[in-house]
Amino acid sequence: MRQAGRYLPEYREIRKTRSLAEICETPELACEAAMQPIRRFDLDAAILFSDLLVPVRALGAEFEIVEGRGPVVARPIRDRDAVRSLKPPSDPRSLDFAFEAVRLLAGALAASGRRVPVIGFAGAPFTIASYLIEGGATRDFLQTRSLMHHDPVAFADLMQRLSDLVIQYVEGQVRAGAQAIQIFDSWAGCLSPSDYKRHVLEPTRRIFAAGGRMGVPMIHFGTTTSGLLELMAFCGGDVQSVDWRIPLSAARARCPGRAVQGNLDPAALLAPQPVLERMIDEVLAEAGSEPGHIFNLGHGVLPGTPVDNVALLIRSVREKSRRPVSETERQS
Amino acid sequence: MRQAGRYLPEYREIRKTRSLAEICETPELACEAAMQPIRRFDLDAAILFSDLLVPVRALGAEFEIVEGRGPVVARPIRDRDAVRSLKPPSDPRSLDFAFEAVRLLAGALAASGRRVPVIGFAGAPFTIASYLIEGGATRDFLQTRSLMHHDPVAFADLMQRLSDLVIQYVEGQVRAGAQAIQIFDSWAGCLSPSDYKRHVLEPTRRIFAAGGRMGVPMIHFGTTTSGLLELMAFCGGDVQSVDWRIPLSAARARCPGRAVQGNLDPAALLAPQPVLERMIDEVLAEAGSEPGHIFNLGHGVLPGTPVDNVALLIRSVREKSRRPVSETERQS
Repeated sequence: MRQAGRYLPEYREIRKTRSLAEICETPELACEAAMQPIRRFDLDAAILFSDLLVPVRALGAEFEIVEGRGPVVARPIRDRDAVRSLKPPSDPRSLDFAFEAVRLLAGALAASGRRVPVIGFAGAPFTIASYLIEGGATRDFLQTRSLMHHDPVAFADLMQRLSDLVIQYVEGQVRAGAQAIQIFDSWAGCLSPSDYKRHVLEPTRRIFAAGGRMGVPMIHFGTTTSGLLELMAFCGGDVQSVDWRIPLSAARARCPGRAVQGNLDPAALLAPQPVLERMIDEVLAEAGSEPGHIFNLGHGVLPGTPVDNVALLIRSVREKSRRPVSETERQS
Repeated sequence: MRQAGRYLPEYREIRKTRSLAEICETPELACEAAMQPIRRFDLDAAILFSDLLVPVRALGAEFEIVEGRGPVVARPIRDRDAVRSLKPPSDPRSLDFAFEAVRLLAGALAASGRRVPVIGFAGAPFTIASYLIEGGATRDFLQTRSLMHHDPVAFADLMQRLSDLVIQYVEGQVRAGAQAIQIFDSWAGCLSPSDYKRHVLEPTRRIFAAGGRMGVPMIHFGTTTSGLLELMAFCGGDVQSVDWRIPLSAARARCPGRAVQGNLDPAALLAPQPVLERMIDEVLAEAGSEPGHIFNLGHGVLPGTPVDNVALLIRSVREKSRRPVSETERQS
């Protein structure tokens, strides 16, 4: 749901003078935006404040983030030549701003005296590719699937380049102090299991393998992925994140050996508080008493969410369980 | 995907002078639009040409179908008073145009000498409610879930009224000659299993119970419902339709005692023909050799789909299996 810090008045205050891209690309601002919910709430983790497309500038792709529309790519990548014209991500310094943001955030958290780790943030190759190909948000992902089906070689080339970029991006964040990484494949759920297996699984698996080599836990996020869970788990993350469209008990049964993250419907935070409480109870009941559940929303905090309801959620989960609560409302 | 007859040139010809609503509400035109694909292709069934919102005029709700946007409701229903101001569906003659269209279609099919049955068409209460509440197409269904959570009594009242209307609509179609009914809950997949169970299951189950009393097979359609399949099957349909986001083998295992319908990705029809053939093969392989599979798309035919690819699909499925092919591209 894009940069969901907007439910906080102190975040909206920054946004009065700074664009979303500016906040992501200015380490001090990104650190401040990531710290804001940590100061307000008793959360178990902070996540790098970023946007899915942020690292693609290192490939020479240009985009803007347009209020109410999300990322808009200047020249959508729709054929082999466009893929080939991307620069190799040869200069890792072009991503330094993000690594510096992680470093500042880790420092700020240490200085706060709270034992709150930093989760690094990166889009998965498919979701980044879908923005680059479509040129912006879409409902049907037809251009993406068209390139995949009409020129699978070009599509694989793009996925490989993005996979290389994401690995470099993730490695830099870990070196800068990220203690876990969340990979956002927000839109992989538009795909059939067959397309996922053929075109997405391998380049995604490479990223989780790289994370494994670095020894940090990796969280694999997606939405409308109830039919893809086995394939996503096969990519090798430690934690499978699921949206609210599946009972958590079913998700746990289908991802053996993995922890699960989720899966409160973000719309619950717009409900009256007794309904919100009931929906929290239902998630906890579905999660069961076994370890290996990270309580979280199934997708980002929605615009218009009352801050009081976020506070209630965190207090309530704290009271009702000893499970960790992670603050990861920044996926696109 | 709204009125997907638009992939046929002869349908676009009608649309030059007639609106979508006009076609749905004029029996001769609705019959003609339903017959067009039957004349071109070797299909096993014809479906009433309609739109999800068509019957709500009987409740006094007014809407237009706007090109490229879908249905737009004049006064969205967002509170208890708006629900209560709906008329009871007391005058069944207000739906006569649809029953007459079924009658004409059954007659035209009989006259054609082909043994092709008519499938009746109706939206499920939740999907109709979501249009009435949102006022049009939406991505997040926030108004719908807001009414559900803030005033569950008003929401239940709306669902009950729509359920009554749909039962009346379905009964009239069966009396007019429909030999099966497909209930389109196109957007139920936005819900958590918990919300589905609490707010949607019972009013939907009533419709399938009514269909059962009439002795016609009932098909239950939805998209992004991979996490809801058990609950949807519990509503009592004979056939569970699934989209392409789940392997058909998994869907079959989770709906024991039900046939399944699906689940080719409509984007397959935009792919090069060898890729389309491969995707058809994959669906057939996942379906397995047991009876109880109706080959179909997972959602409507997409704009821009080449007619030749539709022809190839039908020929190919015919050659590769003895399974029936149903032509149901008219959901919203």
